[in-house]
Amino acid sequence: MVYTPRIHIPLRFLACLLYVSRSYIYELESDSVYMRATIFEGEGEISVKDVEKPAVEHPEDAVIRVTHTCVCGSDLWHYRGHSDMGKGSRIGHEPAGIVEEVGDQVTSVEAGDTVLGPFSISCGECEFCRKGLYTSCENGDSWSGENGGAQGEYVKCPTADGTLVKVPDEHVTDEMMERLLPLTDVMCTGHHAAVSAKVSAGDTCIVIGDGAVGLCAVLAAQRLGAQEIIAIGHHEERLEIARSLGATETISKRGKQAVERALDITNGGSNHVLECVGGESSMNMAAQVARPGGTVGYVGVPYGLGEGFDLFSYFGKNIELRGGVAPVRKYIDELTEDVLNGNLDPSPVFTETVELEDIPRGYEAMDEREEVKVLVKP
Amino acid sequence: MVYTPRIHIPLRFLACLLYVSRSYIYELESDSVYMRATIFEGEGEISVKDVEKPAVEHPEDAVIRVTHTCVCGSDLWHYRGHSDMGKGSRIGHEPAGIVEEVGDQVTSVEAGDTVLGPFSISCGECEFCRKGLYTSCENGDSWSGENGGAQGEYVKCPTADGTLVKVPDEHVTDEMMERLLPLTDVMCTGHHAAVSAKVSAGDTCIVIGDGAVGLCAVLAAQRLGAQEIIAIGHHEERLEIARSLGATETISKRGKQAVERALDITNGGSNHVLECVGGESSMNMAAQVARPGGTVGYVGVPYGLGEGFDLFSYFGKNIELRGGVAPVRKYIDELTEDVLNGNLDPSPVFTETVELEDIPRGYEAMDEREEVKVLVKP
Repeated sequence: MVYTPRIHIPLRFLACLLYVSRSYIYELESDSVYMRATIFEGEGEISVKDVEKPAVEHPEDAVIRVTHTCVCGSDLWHYRGHSDMGKGSRIGHEPAGIVEEVGDQVTSVEAGDTVLGPFSISCGECEFCRKGLYTSCENGDSWSGENGGAQGEYVKCPTADGTLVKVPDEHVTDEMMERLLPLTDVMCTGHHAAVSAKVSAGDTCIVIGDGAVGLCAVLAAQRLGAQEIIAIGHHEERLEIARSLGATETISKRGKQAVERALDITNGGSNHVLECVGGESSMNMAAQVARPGGTVGYVGVPYGLGEGFDLFSYFGKNIELRGGVAPVRKYIDELTEDVLNGNLDPSPVFTETVELEDIPRGYEAMDEREEVKVLVKP
Repeated sequence: MVYTPRIHIPLRFLACLLYVSRSYIYELESDSVYMRATIFEGEGEISVKDVEKPAVEHPEDAVIRVTHTCVCGSDLWHYRGHSDMGKGSRIGHEPAGIVEEVGDQVTSVEAGDTVLGPFSISCGECEFCRKGLYTSCENGDSWSGENGGAQGEYVKCPTADGTLVKVPDEHVTDEMMERLLPLTDVMCTGHHAAVSAKVSAGDTCIVIGDGAVGLCAVLAAQRLGAQEIIAIGHHEERLEIARSLGATETISKRGKQAVERALDITNGGSNHVLECVGGESSMNMAAQVARPGGTVGYVGVPYGLGEGFDLFSYFGKNIELRGGVAPVRKYIDELTEDVLNGNLDPSPVFTETVELEDIPRGYEAMDEREEVKVLVKP
């Protein structure tokens, strides 16, 4: 095809002109400054729009220019219409980037610092933060809503000292940030599954789920020294990643067949089961593959549990059910250290990278299970 | 009214004659010997009938002449038609009595010994028995069915050494047996709730349920040194018993009001919740009154858990769910010692005593919640 510049040049010029004038008008019209951010437009619809850029308003605030963020399996609930998130909401809860501005009382980070933002915002000072249960923070907050949403150019953290984790300058490279980013959610969530399931060196464990959290749970179990790690999932290519992250055995069968295989390999079930899905069938499977008296560490957000959820299987076998929403802030320091040391690399969970403007395509690809997890670079 | 012996004497005589002839005929007709035992006749129907007396058949068997037994809340599931127990089944699982005969390999008890029978029969030698998880015994059995049912004159224990607990002769009195009998089920179950909920000295705990297990859970928490024990129930007279067993506070409100009161007393929830009912609303209440990061010890057999069961409440607050069917054999030795020492007396859970022939009335009274637990003396 012959290249016909006459058509393209004016269009590009027009676009450029529009962009410049838009920025100019915004800045003139008010004190507000605008940025691009991801908007949940309703079921199956994600857009990127101009929205007001968040600013430091309180002395404990920090504003972060997001350099790396990602799409979470839990963002898909909204996308799939399984939540009551309002149309027009900001979205995203896994930010990493450079501190732009801090309030007067912020002491742990300053402008220019590179930071990670655990998915739940915590004060660091209440009863539960002091216990390490940051997700139950009495002053907790969310990245979305008025804080701007982490899938945007900027986001605000209202309790910076209790939340943000500084990445030492000498370690900041794009590659390192891709390794660190999963610590804002899925890697610490997988670790919470392993810790909750009481995995320790030499153990045999079973990981249910081959999503990003399941894969991170495999990695976490391996990091804790598990000797046998059996990963159960539905997708051969994801189980291949699981093997690369430490799974010693994978089961791609479903339902009863998967249970039989797991019981066969473990000679009657494992004392340590990491449930990383949250659905009725996976919660039931967790009890079925657990050894009597064993422990299920569950981090898959419970959904669709109806009358088919079989708590009696847990009851009859005295299986402990531990875990819940992962207190990332509790774990992120030690895991960050391991990533910086080169001893931990959860970046294989990112199977695709998009620019912010292309995030709708990222949601689509994750929704259709074409990608495990999509990295976004605003 | 004038006494008219002519009517009564012949009737009594006739009854006596019938009894003697019946026994005679049975013994003549076969080698079998008969006994009276409780029969589940179908929903709402319990009878006492002549059935074959169990005999030692295997070297590990023991046959016990039941002197004390009782009706359990779980017997009521069958009575209420909530199980698939077949019509004509033997029933009862809480035997205490005198060993009548033992098989050649039984070494821990002998004929004439007084024993307690934990509600689940265990071998004492498999992986799970050795772990103390006797309810998951690989060779486990039940008192009902061919073993005869514990609500009868005799019952067989197929693995006597792994199951039965000898009561030292010098302690055997009727009063002491009434104190010991709850250890065959409800007292050890309440203790399992307390242990599973990690109750220890000085703790504040909440007990949900004012049935026999709930009352025993209060007593168990007190025995473990809990400082504040808040009992939640529906029946003022049962909560009165709870207070007598150690409850420092009782809540007879229901639902949301009960939760608010419990949160108020505990300044936001307890780290130790003992769930002793098993229904959807009580399981949800347990999560609601638990402090974030706390533990629910649940021993109420899960029933009727439908879509209203809110596992998300456990998940969001990282509440551990521990417990299950109580491994009585694990706990019964230490609790027996305390009863014999005079330091533990769960007999107040028995609010009525009946003879075996009157057991249908015992079921009725428990079904209608007129009695907490009915003691039966065959």
